[in-house]
Amino acid sequence: MSEIVDIDKRYVENALKQKMNVLRDNRYLMDDVFIPIAKALKMDVEEVIELFAKKLDFASCYELHAYAEQARMGCLGRKVDIDLGLCWICDFFGLITKEEADLIRKKVVESHLLYKKPYNEALEEGRQMIIKLLKEE
Amino acid sequence: MSEIVDIDKRYVENALKQKMNVLRDNRYLMDDVFIPIAKALKMDVEEVIELFAKKLDFASCYELHAYAEQARMGCLGRKVDIDLGLCWICDFFGLITKEEADLIRKKVVESHLLYKKPYNEALEEGRQMIIKLLKEE
Repeated sequence: MSEIVDIDKRYVENALKQKMNVLRDNRYLMDDVFIPIAKALKMDVEEVIELFAKKLDFASCYELHAYAEQARMGCLGRKVDIDLGLCWICDFFGLITKEEADLIRKKVVESHLLYKKPYNEALEEGRQMIIKLLKEE
Repeated sequence: MSEIVDIDKRYVENALKQKMNVLRDNRYLMDDVFIPIAKALKMDVEEVIELFAKKLDFASCYELHAYAEQARMGCLGRKVDIDLGLCWICDFFGLITKEEADLIRKKVVESHLLYKKPYNEALEEGRQMIIKLLKEE
């Protein structure tokens, strides 16, 4: 009986190791998911990978890349809101409209993720768009 | 006729100056609204104050303080999401629940704004809460 429990335990441990390998081998996931999360939480990257591996089955480990690209786009949009002060300027003080803010956010995210412009340059484009709108009489 | 136009113009200019004075004299608005927005947009603080003064009537200039406190709470919550990676961890990857994330965000915002804890310390409390949740089996 204790042998079966041992085999089971070993199976779970091996599966976890294999899932961690799948996740670790994906360069995109490493650079754009695990390392940023580890930095935000001040955790070890290996610990972060283990958390994901424990949470996900094998199929989900392979699908994580596609999903992460969507997540990256969504989360970057929120970062743009903070970095450009859109939260204040648009949502609370209405100095520019929601439609204008959506357009600017989208433009910055696309510039950076699709056209590979460095984030600060993409942000600068967005900043110029806001300033232009704000200065329109 | 041109005299009336001149008087009108002068009235508008004077009103603008007075509104700018009202806004500029409010220490809270300066420190927590105009300066952060000026930094985010890399604009001159005076320009930012002028934008608000142009947009607002006198009553709204006086009401801005109360409104700004709400805005500050809302926008800080979004910054916490970014700084703690809640956007990834909760919204996209579901490693913690939405209720847990709401609670952590609220705790950090209150610690900083109501209990005047330095932002990084408040953030650290939130970080510890997340790590505890993530490590629970």
